[in-house]
Amino acid sequence: MYVGIDIGGTNIKIATISARGRVLARGIVATSPRLGPEAAFERIGSALETLTRGREVTAVGVGCAGLIDPVRGVVRSSPNLPGWENAPLGRIAKRILGVYTVVDNDATTAAWGEYRCGTHRGCRSLVFITLGTGVGGGIILDGRIVRGAGNFGGEVGHMTVDPNGPRCRCGNRGCLEAFAGSYGLQRATKALLSEKRSRYLGPWLAAGRRFTPLLLAEAAGRGDSVAKAVFRIAGEALGTAIASLVNVFNPDAVVIGGGVSASFDLFSPHVLRTVRRRAFAEPAAMVRIERSSLGNDATVVGAAMFARDRERGHP
Amino acid sequence: MYVGIDIGGTNIKIATISARGRVLARGIVATSPRLGPEAAFERIGSALETLTRGREVTAVGVGCAGLIDPVRGVVRSSPNLPGWENAPLGRIAKRILGVYTVVDNDATTAAWGEYRCGTHRGCRSLVFITLGTGVGGGIILDGRIVRGAGNFGGEVGHMTVDPNGPRCRCGNRGCLEAFAGSYGLQRATKALLSEKRSRYLGPWLAAGRRFTPLLLAEAAGRGDSVAKAVFRIAGEALGTAIASLVNVFNPDAVVIGGGVSASFDLFSPHVLRTVRRRAFAEPAAMVRIERSSLGNDATVVGAAMFARDRERGHP
Repeated sequence: MYVGIDIGGTNIKIATISARGRVLARGIVATSPRLGPEAAFERIGSALETLTRGREVTAVGVGCAGLIDPVRGVVRSSPNLPGWENAPLGRIAKRILGVYTVVDNDATTAAWGEYRCGTHRGCRSLVFITLGTGVGGGIILDGRIVRGAGNFGGEVGHMTVDPNGPRCRCGNRGCLEAFAGSYGLQRATKALLSEKRSRYLGPWLAAGRRFTPLLLAEAAGRGDSVAKAVFRIAGEALGTAIASLVNVFNPDAVVIGGGVSASFDLFSPHVLRTVRRRAFAEPAAMVRIERSSLGNDATVVGAAMFARDRERGHP
Repeated sequence: MYVGIDIGGTNIKIATISARGRVLARGIVATSPRLGPEAAFERIGSALETLTRGREVTAVGVGCAGLIDPVRGVVRSSPNLPGWENAPLGRIAKRILGVYTVVDNDATTAAWGEYRCGTHRGCRSLVFITLGTGVGGGIILDGRIVRGAGNFGGEVGHMTVDPNGPRCRCGNRGCLEAFAGSYGLQRATKALLSEKRSRYLGPWLAAGRRFTPLLLAEAAGRGDSVAKAVFRIAGEALGTAIASLVNVFNPDAVVIGGGVSASFDLFSPHVLRTVRRRAFAEPAAMVRIERSSLGNDATVVGAAMFARDRERGHP
């Protein structure tokens, strides 16, 4: 039995996973980042006692938001985990859980989950994009994660899709994330509400409902013109980035995960249309652009499979 | 002794190359694409008789402009080689030259040359960009060429750098090639001449001199404001594409080759400034962005080394 842990800014998802990638049991605890990583792993340890019911765990995989050093298992920086900079998660996990642990970026582990257990398992060339607060990515070529010289690779959310586009949290202008991350959706919503009629979204927000991608999706589902336009803008930006990725990688599959991927049907027509318009016909015809078949489990499954594979000697 | 052949729309460069990648002798013949690939390889064969002086050739590598199927050694399409579609270059070369031959895209073989014999030989992660009439690319990760599912990968010239940019020959808008390929330079020149004063370039073109990237460089070198602005626009577009590549690959090196790279000093300040502004600080600080150390020999050297490596069993 393996364990996969998905550390986000708000919650930590925990799952016990079979050696073949099936989720056996799930748990969730609050991240409460301000209490620090030791406290978080104490909570994870308690939850695991219930989840494992005493069965032995072979290895633990952790997928963590932010910039992770997978070699040392250390958080280099993570905007959503304030105070966790330089936290040696691998060492902390090993000490508290008492098991071999690997740590990696959450999007990277999600990509690994899709590669090992998803619809496109074993394909030669896979690009995984997570749409959440930010936009992350993981690229797997010939069974290897594209990491680059300093393990900073895979950041498809920070490809420039419009050089004059809105400011991104990374400091650049017009990154994919500035359009398709949830704060990008929120900014586009605000801008459009000031100039366009909105039947649902405007009144809901005026009445004090909190903006979330789900609220946006609900409004779009009811035909709200602003909400639909926001998904169109985000879908076109995503399509522009994917078109570039299609020309550079000629991948078998581009898989979309993360919370915002719940609204895949609302933006995917714009993605597909943009890719067809912008990418070379041959690789565009070959690539499958789909929602992750593992859904919200991609990171826990991928982290556990990554721990399994590393424990078995896979590079 | 190995042979490298670089087939462009106008000329074919031929070189005999030592097993360690040193150029021993060079030749050049006209491509005359309309006479067909057999006639071209007959001319190559004659030139080789002089170049080899009877010494035995172990293997031949061909780098060819256009979309090449490296598995079958066939030209899939090549705008600059009209009539060569589906030409089985590998088979033709083998028959006429009588030696084991590999065929690949010219930018891919140039990347291989840089990887095997250039300043950055053996580095983990290398992106090679050729600036010529078009903009090509080759990416090498952990000693392997990024080819993708159907061998269409590596087309960094067709990353979208501005979704509303000028039309590219591929049909898309705002590809890197539409800014930094020589026809992109020409279009930008024409547009700027209609609205900006030009001390040299305008008068030269008005007097009937033909536009070439070298003419543009000469004008920029003399301080012509239009020529300098054209290199700034192209450099910023190249910088935007490289910034995305830096975030996606975290490469050790981005190497610029092709004819237009002769003007590297005129556009590179804009490239470096744009990459620093747009890419994450850490991978931007790691990447070396340089002109190819092999210059115009990159494709012949790379093709020969690729033939050598394949002949020795490298994938």
